[in-house]
Amino acid sequence: MLEQLKQQVWEANLMLPRHHLVTFTWGNVSAVDRHAGRMIIKPSGVEYEQMNAEDMVVVDLDSGKVVEGDKKPSSDTATHLALYQRFPGIGGIVHTHSRHATIWAQAGLDLPAWGTTHADYFYGAIPCTRLMTDDEIHGDYERATGDVIIETFVNRGIDPLQIPAVLVNAHGPFAWGSNAANAVHNAVVLEECAYMGIFSRQLTPAIGPMQSSLLDKHYLRKHGANAYYGQK
Amino acid sequence: MLEQLKQQVWEANLMLPRHHLVTFTWGNVSAVDRHAGRMIIKPSGVEYEQMNAEDMVVVDLDSGKVVEGDKKPSSDTATHLALYQRFPGIGGIVHTHSRHATIWAQAGLDLPAWGTTHADYFYGAIPCTRLMTDDEIHGDYERATGDVIIETFVNRGIDPLQIPAVLVNAHGPFAWGSNAANAVHNAVVLEECAYMGIFSRQLTPAIGPMQSSLLDKHYLRKHGANAYYGQK
Amino acid sequence: MLEQLKQQVWEANLMLPRHHLVTFTWGNVSAVDRHAGRMIIKPSGVEYEQMNAEDMVVVDLDSGKVVEGDKKPSSDTATHLALYQRFPGIGGIVHTHSRHATIWAQAGLDLPAWGTTHADYFYGAIPCTRLMTDDEIHGDYERATGDVIIETFVNRGIDPLQIPAVLVNAHGPFAWGSNAANAVHNAVVLEECAYMGIFSRQLTPAIGPMQSSLLDKHYLRKHGANAYYGQK
Amino acid sequence: MLEQLKQQVWEANLMLPRHHLVTFTWGNVSAVDRHAGRMIIKPSGVEYEQMNAEDMVVVDLDSGKVVEGDKKPSSDTATHLALYQRFPGIGGIVHTHSRHATIWAQAGLDLPAWGTTHADYFYGAIPCTRLMTDDEIHGDYERATGDVIIETFVNRGIDPLQIPAVLVNAHGPFAWGSNAANAVHNAVVLEECAYMGIFSRQLTPAIGPMQSSLLDKHYLRKHGANAYYGQK
Repeated sequence: MLEQLKQQVWEANLMLPRHHLVTFTWGNVSAVDRHAGRMIIKPSGVEYEQMNAEDMVVVDLDSGKVVEGDKKPSSDTATHLALYQRFPGIGGIVHTHSRHATIWAQAGLDLPAWGTTHADYFYGAIPCTRLMTDDEIHGDYERATGDVIIETFVNRGIDPLQIPAVLVNAHGPFAWGSNAANAVHNAVVLEECAYMGIFSRQLTPAIGPMQSSLLDKHYLRKHGANAYYGQK
Repeated sequence: MLEQLKQQVWEANLMLPRHHLVTFTWGNVSAVDRHAGRMIIKPSGVEYEQMNAEDMVVVDLDSGKVVEGDKKPSSDTATHLALYQRFPGIGGIVHTHSRHATIWAQAGLDLPAWGTTHADYFYGAIPCTRLMTDDEIHGDYERATGDVIIETFVNRGIDPLQIPAVLVNAHGPFAWGSNAANAVHNAVVLEECAYMGIFSRQLTPAIGPMQSSLLDKHYLRKHGANAYYGQK
Repeated sequence: MLEQLKQQVWEANLMLPRHHLVTFTWGNVSAVDRHAGRMIIKPSGVEYEQMNAEDMVVVDLDSGKVVEGDKKPSSDTATHLALYQRFPGIGGIVHTHSRHATIWAQAGLDLPAWGTTHADYFYGAIPCTRLMTDDEIHGDYERATGDVIIETFVNRGIDPLQIPAVLVNAHGPFAWGSNAANAVHNAVVLEECAYMGIFSRQLTPAIGPMQSSLLDKHYLRKHGANAYYGQK
Repeated sequence: MLEQLKQQVWEANLMLPRHHLVTFTWGNVSAVDRHAGRMIIKPSGVEYEQMNAEDMVVVDLDSGKVVEGDKKPSSDTATHLALYQRFPGIGGIVHTHSRHATIWAQAGLDLPAWGTTHADYFYGAIPCTRLMTDDEIHGDYERATGDVIIETFVNRGIDPLQIPAVLVNAHGPFAWGSNAANAVHNAVVLEECAYMGIFSRQLTPAIGPMQSSLLDKHYLRKHGANAYYGQK
């Protein structure tokens, strides 16, 4: 089971350069096996073309301790763990510094839902977290990054399964999904919407959120109980 | 005949990733055989590199019912049908979420004719449709999308053969042409003009439409009765 | 001699897609043999990957009549001829609709010299032509396009050898050089400077022209009598 | 020793086109062997794909005289030498006209630290130099370019090891590092941050520098005595 998941995590990590979401080693994908209580994640600072599935690091889902692998896990491991622990419905997580999502994060702004491309995957604006306090930054920083993401979703009443991405203020995006590949898929869509959002707002500065009826229609035709997009 | 058309539709669909007009499966091309009363269209949610010509779905031009193919047709099938039924001169249609055309659609703006690149293919501004009503969205949505496109051309007195593209508000572009390949060709030009338009307007915010004499000259040297561009 | 020049023109045309200066067939390169009184130019509307050197069209430098080749020459032939006839120092010309140079042309603005990248090749702003009159457009349009370029250089006292490019208003760029390859080289630099200019002006809207001492220094270290850049 | 360094300098120069930092020959990388008192640098105006390691030019670190190699060294040699002489901690230098860093240089602005991508490599804003005087430009220009970079770091109290890059006003970026490859690595990051900065400022014009606590955290987790990023 874990061997198969390692393979999936490795392949999902390789999707990052293929979709132009990363420069150098600036991104990491993980997946979780909730039954086994394990998370598998990219090793820290290793280049994509030099990794293989065996380099993926297995950590305990509760303690975060490495239980398999001879490399150090991603420096963002504690953030991934916090999200898996609090959001039971997600199976894979990805963090990148993809250019346009990061631009919104650096600007400290939510990415509004401005069209059906967005609505096909995200049921509303992608939130941007508040700035972290100095105490949070000086303390267990990566864990606190996860906590501020969770706080954002909880305080604003956002369902992380319906809006599977976040912009961490002055940092960059995290996205997630049912598994590692789906998380990367959502990260690609986020990047696409982030790009288009910059210039939609340039053309129409007073642009408001899209009609809620259209948001509903597109999100639900792909994700609702009565979804009819695709071959299922 | 239909086998040949399936091949053309398949090939035209493969042009979409090659011209960077699509991410994932976000685009579909169709063509019509008016004599046979059939439309052929990409299956829904299938990846381009995994399709072959046999996967193209044949639907009845009037009823929209699938008459051949074991896959579901594109979720935008009803929009394509509406356009073929109302615009008798067109032979192929393409829908994408290409970045820059979609930016204008999200901004809710027509794309003005600002240069000869545009005038070589489109005889005036590419219109943006009005927002759809909640009733239209809640009802037969994809059909209504076609209807609002038609309404735009009829109410504004635009000839769909002279301006073979539209921006669906808060959604994205449709383009069409004499056949599937020509429709994709027009979608590429639209994307190019949409890109350039964003920054032309940034440089000269008060930019007006191009001279009508220059628009005439370029459109007609390629498309008029006395066209002299190319090898014909 | 002409066979060799055909080869050079063909190769220079192939540089256009390689440097991402063209979409479809939207560009053409020519060269002149002043001794033979001949210009060689790309055929009209033919795709780059389907041409070979034999498809290049030879026209008479004075009359513009085709003297060799079974294809029609580029629709912009008369513009090229006008420039060769009036600017005796140039050996190759290229016309494209490259994105960012075209953006400046559509905006109707000169591209100022804002940095050493520009100064290394162009000894001042790249001029944008005035709008053409309806009479010019209705008459011998392509010839008049050449004439308005020439008028721009003459009236503004610009040496076409020192500023080997122009932006044709609402249309796109022409560039030239000592031969076909050098003309394309200059078109690549123009595109690069056009891109950077858009965003330099966005960051510093009141940006003025660069220091004339720095413009002199960079232009002359590559092009003056005492040039010291490169291996010569 | 020098043979090995030539190889490294050659390989680092080849990284420039691979990372899309250069057009034509617009960039050069050097490295220093302080023990031998030698600098090795790309030859002037030679294309990347046509160079090999033996074409790298060896110059004396003090006098700048060529001591090995049959090609002329980069026209920017004196700038590189000035930086090596004054900044003893650096082992490699790169100069490019990469698009977005050059945009900031042309705009005459520092690139502020607006996010963790920046903070992971640069411990504060990347400074832009003052304009050079006419005397500096008319005199030993390339040496003076180095001097104005040094003045910028000295007068503003910036440690070149902590901020290994600069924007030369109206010109373009220089970056450096522990060796040639590391210098190019920093140039890639600079380009990435320069791109994102343009649009972060577009979205939030009043954007201030990032929190100093977050800047510290990210810079020091990769570069401080207690760094914990990567496999070391």
